[in-house]
Amino acid sequence: MKVKVAINGYGTIGKRLADAINAQPDMEVIGVTKTRPTFEAKMANLRGFPLYAASKDFVSRFDEAGLETQGTLDDLLPEADIVMDCTPKKMGYKEMYEKLGKKAIWQGGEKHDLTGLSFNAMANYEQAYGAQFVRVVSCNTTGLLRTLYPLYTEYGIDNVLAVMVRRSADPWDTKRGPINAIEPVLKVPSHHGPDVQSVVPELNIQTTAVKVPTTIMHLHSVVVDLKKEVSSEDVIGLWKATPRIIFVSGSEGIKSTAQIMEMARDLCRERGDLYEIAVWDDGVHTVGKKLYYYQAIHQESDVVPENVDAIRSMLEMEEDKLKSMETTDKYIGVC
Amino acid sequence: MKVKVAINGYGTIGKRLADAINAQPDMEVIGVTKTRPTFEAKMANLRGFPLYAASKDFVSRFDEAGLETQGTLDDLLPEADIVMDCTPKKMGYKEMYEKLGKKAIWQGGEKHDLTGLSFNAMANYEQAYGAQFVRVVSCNTTGLLRTLYPLYTEYGIDNVLAVMVRRSADPWDTKRGPINAIEPVLKVPSHHGPDVQSVVPELNIQTTAVKVPTTIMHLHSVVVDLKKEVSSEDVIGLWKATPRIIFVSGSEGIKSTAQIMEMARDLCRERGDLYEIAVWDDGVHTVGKKLYYYQAIHQESDVVPENVDAIRSMLEMEEDKLKSMETTDKYIGVC
Amino acid sequence: MKVKVAINGYGTIGKRLADAINAQPDMEVIGVTKTRPTFEAKMANLRGFPLYAASKDFVSRFDEAGLETQGTLDDLLPEADIVMDCTPKKMGYKEMYEKLGKKAIWQGGEKHDLTGLSFNAMANYEQAYGAQFVRVVSCNTTGLLRTLYPLYTEYGIDNVLAVMVRRSADPWDTKRGPINAIEPVLKVPSHHGPDVQSVVPELNIQTTAVKVPTTIMHLHSVVVDLKKEVSSEDVIGLWKATPRIIFVSGSEGIKSTAQIMEMARDLCRERGDLYEIAVWDDGVHTVGKKLYYYQAIHQESDVVPENVDAIRSMLEMEEDKLKSMETTDKYIGVC
Amino acid sequence: MKVKVAINGYGTIGKRLADAINAQPDMEVIGVTKTRPTFEAKMANLRGFPLYAASKDFVSRFDEAGLETQGTLDDLLPEADIVMDCTPKKMGYKEMYEKLGKKAIWQGGEKHDLTGLSFNAMANYEQAYGAQFVRVVSCNTTGLLRTLYPLYTEYGIDNVLAVMVRRSADPWDTKRGPINAIEPVLKVPSHHGPDVQSVVPELNIQTTAVKVPTTIMHLHSVVVDLKKEVSSEDVIGLWKATPRIIFVSGSEGIKSTAQIMEMARDLCRERGDLYEIAVWDDGVHTVGKKLYYYQAIHQESDVVPENVDAIRSMLEMEEDKLKSMETTDKYIGVC
Repeated sequence: MKVKVAINGYGTIGKRLADAINAQPDMEVIGVTKTRPTFEAKMANLRGFPLYAASKDFVSRFDEAGLETQGTLDDLLPEADIVMDCTPKKMGYKEMYEKLGKKAIWQGGEKHDLTGLSFNAMANYEQAYGAQFVRVVSCNTTGLLRTLYPLYTEYGIDNVLAVMVRRSADPWDTKRGPINAIEPVLKVPSHHGPDVQSVVPELNIQTTAVKVPTTIMHLHSVVVDLKKEVSSEDVIGLWKATPRIIFVSGSEGIKSTAQIMEMARDLCRERGDLYEIAVWDDGVHTVGKKLYYYQAIHQESDVVPENVDAIRSMLEMEEDKLKSMETTDKYIGVC
Repeated sequence: MKVKVAINGYGTIGKRLADAINAQPDMEVIGVTKTRPTFEAKMANLRGFPLYAASKDFVSRFDEAGLETQGTLDDLLPEADIVMDCTPKKMGYKEMYEKLGKKAIWQGGEKHDLTGLSFNAMANYEQAYGAQFVRVVSCNTTGLLRTLYPLYTEYGIDNVLAVMVRRSADPWDTKRGPINAIEPVLKVPSHHGPDVQSVVPELNIQTTAVKVPTTIMHLHSVVVDLKKEVSSEDVIGLWKATPRIIFVSGSEGIKSTAQIMEMARDLCRERGDLYEIAVWDDGVHTVGKKLYYYQAIHQESDVVPENVDAIRSMLEMEEDKLKSMETTDKYIGVC
Repeated sequence: MKVKVAINGYGTIGKRLADAINAQPDMEVIGVTKTRPTFEAKMANLRGFPLYAASKDFVSRFDEAGLETQGTLDDLLPEADIVMDCTPKKMGYKEMYEKLGKKAIWQGGEKHDLTGLSFNAMANYEQAYGAQFVRVVSCNTTGLLRTLYPLYTEYGIDNVLAVMVRRSADPWDTKRGPINAIEPVLKVPSHHGPDVQSVVPELNIQTTAVKVPTTIMHLHSVVVDLKKEVSSEDVIGLWKATPRIIFVSGSEGIKSTAQIMEMARDLCRERGDLYEIAVWDDGVHTVGKKLYYYQAIHQESDVVPENVDAIRSMLEMEEDKLKSMETTDKYIGVC
Repeated sequence: MKVKVAINGYGTIGKRLADAINAQPDMEVIGVTKTRPTFEAKMANLRGFPLYAASKDFVSRFDEAGLETQGTLDDLLPEADIVMDCTPKKMGYKEMYEKLGKKAIWQGGEKHDLTGLSFNAMANYEQAYGAQFVRVVSCNTTGLLRTLYPLYTEYGIDNVLAVMVRRSADPWDTKRGPINAIEPVLKVPSHHGPDVQSVVPELNIQTTAVKVPTTIMHLHSVVVDLKKEVSSEDVIGLWKATPRIIFVSGSEGIKSTAQIMEMARDLCRERGDLYEIAVWDDGVHTVGKKLYYYQAIHQESDVVPENVDAIRSMLEMEEDKLKSMETTDKYIGVC
């Protein structure tokens, strides 16, 4: 029997989770919620996800737009084994889930304190085992953990300095700028370092961040002081043995985030998404114990498989993190 | 038995044709050519398309990159029933095809004179029946013909004025700008009007064009002087009955080309492509005999189904244009 | 003696008016208002403009920031002969000006009804003579009037169709997008046509508009049905004899709005502004009575000289529009 | 008597140097060269700079365009005391200057080896005293040296890690992209570190670089390991006492490079240029001996004052670097 998953908030992340979860052999989406009858709501119907209004107040909106709903969140929640909360941050549904005794997963826009447990499959799958509330860390933090955690366990890390060159808006988000500017995050170090530490507390890391006028991917320039001297081949070998890292080559024509996204479209994943972190193999360099690398983060989708794994851990469906990751990846098409 | 199709040039258009053709029940791709061992060449292998070097001079490049090829274009062509020429314009392969007595289809970057026959499925499928050489018109011309041709046959057209607001580069093409400017095409009227007339000679149309810093879609602002007075509902009804036109609504949150592309990704077509021309239903207005509308053109893919239909016409596989279009669309996922 | 001008709202337009007015021999700026102690407020001080808080509520903000103010708008207004209202639209200061019996000029963001008199120096300077309240039309409408009005008076116009390809945000405005999309104005025809008619009611004009991801200039693609057949040389000659139109040439390397702005910087106007409408001479074409042209609009500054002329007309300082325009242009550096 | 300066190459840098040099009391521009009769060549004439064709081959181009030239580079050079070589890199004029025994200054696009002497006014003015050939380092290297050199001399530096987030094209350069991508420089560490060391060899610095779709400024995220613990106030105080560093504040509304450029326009420098390096005061943070800061670099103009100082040093016009810098800055309007 499949576990029943409710998606509260069918937006950028919610719609991807719906597809990824439904693709798994041991889970099914029993409904998704929406506040407005947008084209995304229509798409939910088209894809066969039962559509629920986020609250009673919104039902009439859907009626007016001629879009059928199966009820409201209140009707959906009791049927679910677990809720994926993909609503905007600080919406405050926690109490509602608690009252119903439901397990729930939040996304990285929320603070660590909301759940006290921040999640990355490779780093702390076991910690979430049986937990009621979990927060899957943000796309950037997930990206950092994917490549840093194996370095940390294999070689040891003295210190990390990462500069996050961030896309300013998602592709569909046409309201946000800038059109022609670079905007630094003046709070230094930025929150990404502490966010990594919410999962791996002992990892020394400082981050700064700048926003740039692009919509498709974030890019990180990372410098790691390792505890021992290794070659770039060693590092590449280590990452090749790690799930959810994919290599790209400038020498093969992948010179920017644009060609990475083109490659992702060619891979024919859903929506042209890239669940893996993309690392340039010809951008990995070591000088003594110092390791330099660049990685690109598909902000819309890299957390998707982590969420699926979190479900398995929290609902005690699979004890072995690697087995869960393998299943997840297989059914969303990660090779 | 399936007809055998060779793809000469596995790039932006070539790779899409390969997928679309292979998806058809009556066609198969027997090989694709490439000049360099880029990531796209790798993807061809991954997707199972036999890879050929474009010429003998290039074989060593592939060998060095460890990418297996099945031979060269010279080996591929004799086996094909028809060649899709997706090479850069003016590459001059025509003589080679002629010598082998092969049929061939070129793309809109070529001049009309190369084939003497420019193609749009709805407008002149019959004209290409049995033809040896055909040119499928460009993405913008295809877009104009999709919406104008039904108006022309149903209501009659006195005159069309269209301004093409063009994306400046494809998403993967990071070399081209501008980053922050608008660039008019100073040759006025632009070549798009005469290109429409290469298919429908009697259609009066003038066009101007400007390039803008976006990568995802072209947008046309069109004003048509119809021969009779109709309502916007009439026009929308006519277009709804026409293949390969899709409606979007500003009122549902699709306010720009960005949300159209998001919708296309949600539709789960290959690569997030949109084969249809997208027309804003709340942007269609009539004032007397004047009709105003906006349409968005997915420059990478709208010509794909036209190419498939051209094959059926040229190889005399199907006499009825609508039946060919229906088959094509069904197998590439157009609803 | 110089007339005394107050600038209510020292922002994008306000700061330019302050400089342009102060440069005139017959006017002086007696103060500018600001709601917040931003860097622009600092710049006002640096440039020697007496700074006033927009209201008493805001004085403490300036005090806290250590920025000296000379009082509030209430202190400034009584001293002024005329107020340039450059506040955001619908701020509702009209009543205040009326109570004090002050003349005032608003910008194009306001509706025509606010003043009942919309202004363009060449088209209706005389109409504003002695008027109390005037609205200077927006940058786009000003641009259209600059080139259309001489055509209208010299050759007669049957009809105009203009597509406005609009910049989406000013250069400093980093909050607004889109970063990568084209967004049509779905209300068709757009408001720009009627806005032209608020100055020249008999001019038949329809406009559509699209927003594109650039910050520096708007661009118009215009098609005019003239009442008589003329050559492109005739039209260029007519415009050369018209103030505030400047010609650029694709053949000299000015292929886009970017090179126009570069030229403006080379001309060493204040802030690199371009008060003139830029018309591509190699983009002017006539076919029979049809005239095609492209023009570029510097949205931040083309209305500046019109505002200066409006002051002279309203305060009855100069009866002859051409004399006023000549004076204005001379002192702001238009050659 | 003023020293006579020839500008070989009146482009982005050349035209700025022409203005800045002509503004100095002890120098004059005796001519500028150009290869084509572009609008920039016209502007040279308009601004009163004698225009020379770069070689005899190009004279006819200017004649055809009706643009008067005073001869060719061959005519200009013998009259000059020094040549500012602002031609594209590797043009190879060195031999020509040597033959005539002329002093010459190149820009940062050239390699250090061309002159063996790379220049930054504050760091090594004395080293260039009397030299024949000098290379003024690039905009990014100049920016790094401006802020790092005082730290280096005052506190000592153990190590620097800087990530250069680079604009991809100058504002006028509409050919170059990307429009929507981030492109890392895969050569790691990037050349900027060694370029800093071409001026200050003992400074430990590693840099990486990414290109982003903006045209107006570069931005650096810098982390410095100082030799002693200081406060951010100390650092800000040190930089305030250093020429050619200007502070901006996020709290005053300067949140990105766009508002910095707006401020520069408000400062009414020529072309809206910013000769200073802009440092966010609320982005300067110290943690122990670690210093974090962001700086923005106006790529078109920050090297301009350095070039003027290099002239004074090479022609032995002024021994004291600070006096030269003060004079330079005064006459180009740096406050």
